Amino acid sequence: MSKVKILALHGPNLNLLGQREPDVYGSMTLEEIDRALEDRGKKLGVSIDSYQSNHEGELVDRIQAAAIDFDGILINPAAFSHYSYALRDALSAAGLPVIEVHLSNVFARETFRHHSVITPVAEGMVCGLGPDSYLLGLEALVNILKKERR
Amino acid sequence: MSKVKILALHGPNLNLLGQREPDVYGSMTLEEIDRALEDRGKKLGVSIDSYQSNHEGELVDRIQAAAIDFDGILINPAAFSHYSYALRDALSAAGLPVIEVHLSNVFARETFRHHSVITPVAEGMVCGLGPDSYLLGLEALVNILKKERR
Amino acid sequence: MSKVKILALHGPNLNLLGQREPDVYGSMTLEEIDRALEDRGKKLGVSIDSYQSNHEGELVDRIQAAAIDFDGILINPAAFSHYSYALRDALSAAGLPVIEVHLSNVFARETFRHHSVITPVAEGMVCGLGPDSYLLGLEALVNILKKERR
Amino acid sequence: MSKVKILALHGPNLNLLGQREPDVYGSMTLEEIDRALEDRGKKLGVSIDSYQSNHEGELVDRIQAAAIDFDGILINPAAFSHYSYALRDALSAAGLPVIEVHLSNVFARETFRHHSVITPVAEGMVCGLGPDSYLLGLEALVNILKKERR
Amino acid sequence: MSKVKILALHGPNLNLLGQREPDVYGSMTLEEIDRALEDRGKKLGVSIDSYQSNHEGELVDRIQAAAIDFDGILINPAAFSHYSYALRDALSAAGLPVIEVHLSNVFARETFRHHSVITPVAEGMVCGLGPDSYLLGLEALVNILKKERR
Amino acid sequence: MSKVKILALHGPNLNLLGQREPDVYGSMTLEEIDRALEDRGKKLGVSIDSYQSNHEGELVDRIQAAAIDFDGILINPAAFSHYSYALRDALSAAGLPVIEVHLSNVFARETFRHHSVITPVAEGMVCGLGPDSYLLGLEALVNILKKERR
Amino acid sequence: MSKVKILALHGPNLNLLGQREPDVYGSMTLEEIDRALEDRGKKLGVSIDSYQSNHEGELVDRIQAAAIDFDGILINPAAFSHYSYALRDALSAAGLPVIEVHLSNVFARETFRHHSVITPVAEGMVCGLGPDSYLLGLEALVNILKKERR
Amino acid sequence: MSKVKILALHGPNLNLLGQREPDVYGSMTLEEIDRALEDRGKKLGVSIDSYQSNHEGELVDRIQAAAIDFDGILINPAAFSHYSYALRDALSAAGLPVIEVHLSNVFARETFRHHSVITPVAEGMVCGLGPDSYLLGLEALVNILKKERR
Amino acid sequence: MSKVKILALHGPNLNLLGQREPDVYGSMTLEEIDRALEDRGKKLGVSIDSYQSNHEGELVDRIQAAAIDFDGILINPAAFSHYSYALRDALSAAGLPVIEVHLSNVFARETFRHHSVITPVAEGMVCGLGPDSYLLGLEALVNILKKERR
Amino acid sequence: MSKVKILALHGPNLNLLGQREPDVYGSMTLEEIDRALEDRGKKLGVSIDSYQSNHEGELVDRIQAAAIDFDGILINPAAFSHYSYALRDALSAAGLPVIEVHLSNVFARETFRHHSVITPVAEGMVCGLGPDSYLLGLEALVNILKKERR
Amino acid sequence: MSKVKILALHGPNLNLLGQREPDVYGSMTLEEIDRALEDRGKKLGVSIDSYQSNHEGELVDRIQAAAIDFDGILINPAAFSHYSYALRDALSAAGLPVIEVHLSNVFARETFRHHSVITPVAEGMVCGLGPDSYLLGLEALVNILKKERR
Amino acid sequence: MSKVKILALHGPNLNLLGQREPDVYGSMTLEEIDRALEDRGKKLGVSIDSYQSNHEGELVDRIQAAAIDFDGILINPAAFSHYSYALRDALSAAGLPVIEVHLSNVFARETFRHHSVITPVAEGMVCGLGPDSYLLGLEALVNILKKERR
Repeated sequence: MSKVKILALHGPNLNLLGQREPDVYGSMTLEEIDRALEDRGKKLGVSIDSYQSNHEGELVDRIQAAAIDFDGILINPAAFSHYSYALRDALSAAGLPVIEVHLSNVFARETFRHHSVITPVAEGMVCGLGPDSYLLGLEALVNILKKERR
Repeated sequence: MSKVKILALHGPNLNLLGQREPDVYGSMTLEEIDRALEDRGKKLGVSIDSYQSNHEGELVDRIQAAAIDFDGILINPAAFSHYSYALRDALSAAGLPVIEVHLSNVFARETFRHHSVITPVAEGMVCGLGPDSYLLGLEALVNILKKERR
Repeated sequence: MSKVKILALHGPNLNLLGQREPDVYGSMTLEEIDRALEDRGKKLGVSIDSYQSNHEGELVDRIQAAAIDFDGILINPAAFSHYSYALRDALSAAGLPVIEVHLSNVFARETFRHHSVITPVAEGMVCGLGPDSYLLGLEALVNILKKERR
Repeated sequence: MSKVKILALHGPNLNLLGQREPDVYGSMTLEEIDRALEDRGKKLGVSIDSYQSNHEGELVDRIQAAAIDFDGILINPAAFSHYSYALRDALSAAGLPVIEVHLSNVFARETFRHHSVITPVAEGMVCGLGPDSYLLGLEALVNILKKERR
Repeated sequence: MSKVKILALHGPNLNLLGQREPDVYGSMTLEEIDRALEDRGKKLGVSIDSYQSNHEGELVDRIQAAAIDFDGILINPAAFSHYSYALRDALSAAGLPVIEVHLSNVFARETFRHHSVITPVAEGMVCGLGPDSYLLGLEALVNILKKERR
Repeated sequence: MSKVKILALHGPNLNLLGQREPDVYGSMTLEEIDRALEDRGKKLGVSIDSYQSNHEGELVDRIQAAAIDFDGILINPAAFSHYSYALRDALSAAGLPVIEVHLSNVFARETFRHHSVITPVAEGMVCGLGPDSYLLGLEALVNILKKERR
Repeated sequence: MSKVKILALHGPNLNLLGQREPDVYGSMTLEEIDRALEDRGKKLGVSIDSYQSNHEGELVDRIQAAAIDFDGILINPAAFSHYSYALRDALSAAGLPVIEVHLSNVFARETFRHHSVITPVAEGMVCGLGPDSYLLGLEALVNILKKERR
Repeated sequence: MSKVKILALHGPNLNLLGQREPDVYGSMTLEEIDRALEDRGKKLGVSIDSYQSNHEGELVDRIQAAAIDFDGILINPAAFSHYSYALRDALSAAGLPVIEVHLSNVFARETFRHHSVITPVAEGMVCGLGPDSYLLGLEALVNILKKERR
Repeated sequence: MSKVKILALHGPNLNLLGQREPDVYGSMTLEEIDRALEDRGKKLGVSIDSYQSNHEGELVDRIQAAAIDFDGILINPAAFSHYSYALRDALSAAGLPVIEVHLSNVFARETFRHHSVITPVAEGMVCGLGPDSYLLGLEALVNILKKERR
Repeated sequence: MSKVKILALHGPNLNLLGQREPDVYGSMTLEEIDRALEDRGKKLGVSIDSYQSNHEGELVDRIQAAAIDFDGILINPAAFSHYSYALRDALSAAGLPVIEVHLSNVFARETFRHHSVITPVAEGMVCGLGPDSYLLGLEALVNILKKERR
Repeated sequence: MSKVKILALHGPNLNLLGQREPDVYGSMTLEEIDRALEDRGKKLGVSIDSYQSNHEGELVDRIQAAAIDFDGILINPAAFSHYSYALRDALSAAGLPVIEVHLSNVFARETFRHHSVITPVAEGMVCGLGPDSYLLGLEALVNILKKERR
Repeated sequence: MSKVKILALHGPNLNLLGQREPDVYGSMTLEEIDRALEDRGKKLGVSIDSYQSNHEGELVDRIQAAAIDFDGILINPAAFSHYSYALRDALSAAGLPVIEVHLSNVFARETFRHHSVITPVAEGMVCGLGPDSYLLGLEALVNILKKERR
């Protein structure tokens, strides 16, 4: 049985992690998060590809490509959560299990952040736990994929 | 008199047509739809250029360029229908007749699909007829252009 | 195989077509539209019966009767689009494919015209193309019926 | 003391009962419901007149006439429930006790069916019980009238 | 110069005037109102035709016919005020000056009575003055017509 | 029996009548309207005092004083219609019959003009008839007062 | 075949029936209603257990227990109708047919009483008929259970 | 340093887990979830107390008591998520880190389940992952507590 | 004449007063507030019973019992203010004068705290004055009861 | 230490107190209320200046002047409560403690009276207690000022 | 050609500038702003009259008078921005170019400050720049007037 | 001290300036605006880089890069104003002062243009002044930066 492959997607401005507004988003950089995901992936026996973009279209392209090579998607849609129906349609079309994650507790911030157009097409959502949102989201995704494989 | 030239634009995720969610979007691929448009175009005596993109900005660029070389626009804005005011402004600025088409009956689906920011700047709209939405939209557009030429 | 029969229904005030507000609704009379539908019907190999009424109840009666003798319904519900749940229920009960058409682009007019209670029970909708809305709607309906017959 | 007379009114499309959408509205025809009402009426010592129309105006006319000859009204306004203020005003003007009934549980269906403009001018409402909605509504109405006579 | 002709239209349930809910609508019957209109019309040098119906379609038919023979319309749309876009479209299509009247002060009653879909296509509106709403509405209409004739 | 006394109140910017935006408000000045009211008052056997102010507080003061010396109030609240609850409370406290008038058809203009906080405490409302709104409003008020005197 | 067993549940403040606000809720006490239910139950060949509580949690506990021993639930959720999603989930989980009843016509009272979170998970609803709401609701429930048993 | 103590709270109807609606909530019982939490707790070096109640007041009492003996709260508020401001205030007053969990993806279900009054006072939220929501929520909570201890 | 008896009710989480969030709710404990109420009661010649509960049902039970033995109710419904229609109905049924109090200025906090379902059935409301809200509320209640006794 | 000085402000139409609508506002005149405030002020050792105006601007002027000479403001904004952001800004700028009072229970009256733009900038609010609203509001204000002085 | 004359209007509470809430409105006084406007006016070759009032009516009066003597209006409507339709109508009637300015960024403050009823009748708006809002607004206004003069 | 550097960003379709819809956006091209900005920049002693894109992602990329090399951002987000939370987050993360400008008065156009998601993270906003919006926005930005440098 081939190794489980997971695509970790990071939405707009997440490349700035660690440098800016650390009180909201923490002091860890995106590279560090990606490395932590990789490490955790190794322990869980899955491989992980990471991709960040500030371009909605590039994320859509990447999701479409993923439908062929990957088994699941871990996504922090960042600001796109609130309006990118294109992203939603891409995830829905991909037909893979999706876990949505957010570093901050979006429900304790500005009203517009309380609504995500992505969650209804995801399996589940994790928010407010900082980098742990990613790591626990990854675990959840791997568990879902393992169940499917059985 | 020069030949009428029409630009057929396809929004995000339409490149996946035929492969995914065929119960909603049908089994025809985008290539097949483009070929059918071309065939119908020949019968109607017009030439057709097709363009698909998952990138809002590329569609805007394409519309701006079209304003010079084309006579009308046939567009399925897909998910962009619901929020891309940039697309709307581009179409409005182009000053060409626009026909908006949708494969599925958007009014019988999720609430967010009931509202298009594009329709108010289009001549008309066709939805729910599968690939026929495109073909009939093309006919409508050609008729409008013929009337203008007279 | 018996000939396909289509009922073309025209809602309130459409009997005034051609005489009033030609800038909104065009200069063609309802009789001319009906004749154009008949002509196009002949080419498509279907027969068409037309019926206009300003009375919601008469349209409901007509739809109920149609369920027995007709294969599809082409309807311009006009003002009834925006509130006639009786018409909606009748169309839904008839169990025939329905195409909704509008002469003008209702989404570019007063807000109350943006919402149709009929569209969710129709196969598709065509608007903004003047008499072409009818003719293309007819083509769409015939295509749907042909597919069903196969 | 003269016999109690009750008018049973059926709104649009209820003449189709038993033939269409039996999963929603049951397999009993309107004739069978009317006969069941008559039978139950006999047991309760009241006479019942039934009337169905797809025309709002005819129902209003019938309610106005009823104000003179009848003692109470049992009404299933069907689709008119959701917008016919004319029906509401007629019932209110009639000054007779009114019971509103619905075959299906309207609150478990489309949102527009959750709101009835009729209920505020009725004594009570019964919904979701199929033909029993009518029979129990009749019992309720007769009980109200008996109390008034005392 | 031919005599000015005015059509006075009465919406649903207004035939009950004087008999029911006199605390809301007054004790004058519709016949008495029509006679008062006629008398006032004579003084103003105009002829008046009256028509009441509980059927939306009949009022639409009447308005369409009026467009040919009459110079202005005085209308109390009653319950139709709140939802009859068919009536609105008919009045708008007729191209005659329209005055809307209401016996009661609709803005001091239930919320649904605060909104009329008719007023935006009328010249003006008079409400809350009992039968005077009609008589003053007539005067206003005659004044408008006189100015136009000049 | 003492002569009926009526207070005619004009809200903010009505002192500009005739000079500005004549396409909306007509070419008659406020002085001319006041004179026309006086003339009509004479015919109706009532005396009329007029008062215009751009100050909400002055209108409230004037209404409070009127409660002692006047029999009825004719008011065009102009822009105050849409937010002056102080004016509403003053009119309500005065305990006199109030007729609200508007020169233009407020329901055919900007949305904010569709809602008046004054109408619920008035007897009736007249709008859209130009200076006739005042004159007919006066007649209505005099009729109400005559009925009360009887 | 074992006897059909029905649980009659009464929400908060219903223990006060007959003593307070008799103009709204009638003069019958809850004990009398329970006795009337028992009597009617005997005639219908079913046994009835009654339970009233002002505690949401106790009603949820009781519903959970009922899922084992009872065949159907007759419930007047009283004030809990408007917000107790816990009650709704309990009823939904119980998997038994549920009939919701209200003594008063909730749709003719304060706006907050127009919305019940319970009705969408009930078979049907009866309101406005005083104690008859319970008795007719019971009949409806028994009929549903009889049909299921067949 | 004393052992970290965590309170796991389960809201209304969660005692039914595994028995009812397994398609929505899975086949694992609450006891099994509690055991899994305990096991995971042992691995993480923390002790866990579990408590379920259908009574809002008992959950509030339990949270108040927890403020003294516990270090963090893991809560699935179930139906109380949507309206229990009492629970929210109790959690907020407790001053302990709180993680909210849901078995199902609440954002893909009925609209009323999309809004939680609890999340704004929690550190984070995990939903849609079945029993994993609890286990990952626990891990997150332990990580937060470890960081605080440092 | 028997001594006036007042029931002071404290809603959920008020037992925590003085210990938690003193910046919002002050440093006085509930016991101290109760003692202050007692002292003030003595000066005013009334006796006071206090009761706090986190259980909505217990508060409803207590209010029902109070209807017999007490003359007035002073209540701080805390979080229940915003959704407990059960509490509202209990207070309304008790038929005693009710004064609602809040320690903090609820209108200067989160939006959900701006709306109380209790106030419409209370005589009056006092908020934002810390423990003074209770003491002044008590004075107000005693004054109301004294007026009634006269 | 100088004597505490309090400004008591009365909004529009409050000069009519005692004369009009005594069922809503009571039979006490504003002079009597002012005297009662003075008396209570003497007992509390504070001096009180009263000021009533129907002019929003005069109240704003008065508040601005008060910022220099006074220690606190007791205000019944009457109708201005619902829209005067100018008053709100003036109170906010004054930087003095403010207590808002209302004679009637505004939450049991028309919907527009449920919202005050003033309360968010006040310390607290008292309503529904007739003249007691003023006297208790005064006590509250004095207590706040005493605490500040300490 | 006569010198361009500009009226600078300051709404309620702006006379307090510099003294209060300097963190929001800056430390410059209104006199200093007026002087800065004058200085800038001199450089631009225009004369400037300033006027501040807390009275809506006085600002309306001033605007009406300005229509005759001035060429443009620079206005900071302050709190009146959010509700003074009287001011809006006055500005609209004046027929002069209007520039609206705000010292603070109103869109980053309370929600009610996000909506101005004035902006739709102004040429443009400048906000958030402190005293620069005035100076740049003045430049803009002068540029508009210069273009018109050409 | 290094020279102040400002980034001027132009959103979608602004590259079309001068060519299309000159009645709305004026006749000046974007190149001319950029040159005017440069000229003004020289006078103010700052250097300006301009960048236009129809791609949201490119603007986000550009803003992120700017955070290192630039001192302030002047942005006309055009259509992105109304939905691009990605742009908002990028501007917010950049930590530079931002001035938002619009050529037209967006508040006098379609409703969707009245709301900008960008303004709350900008220092200020200038709209409706044509190319002057840019030039005055630049001046404002330079003034802010000068104050910071001091």
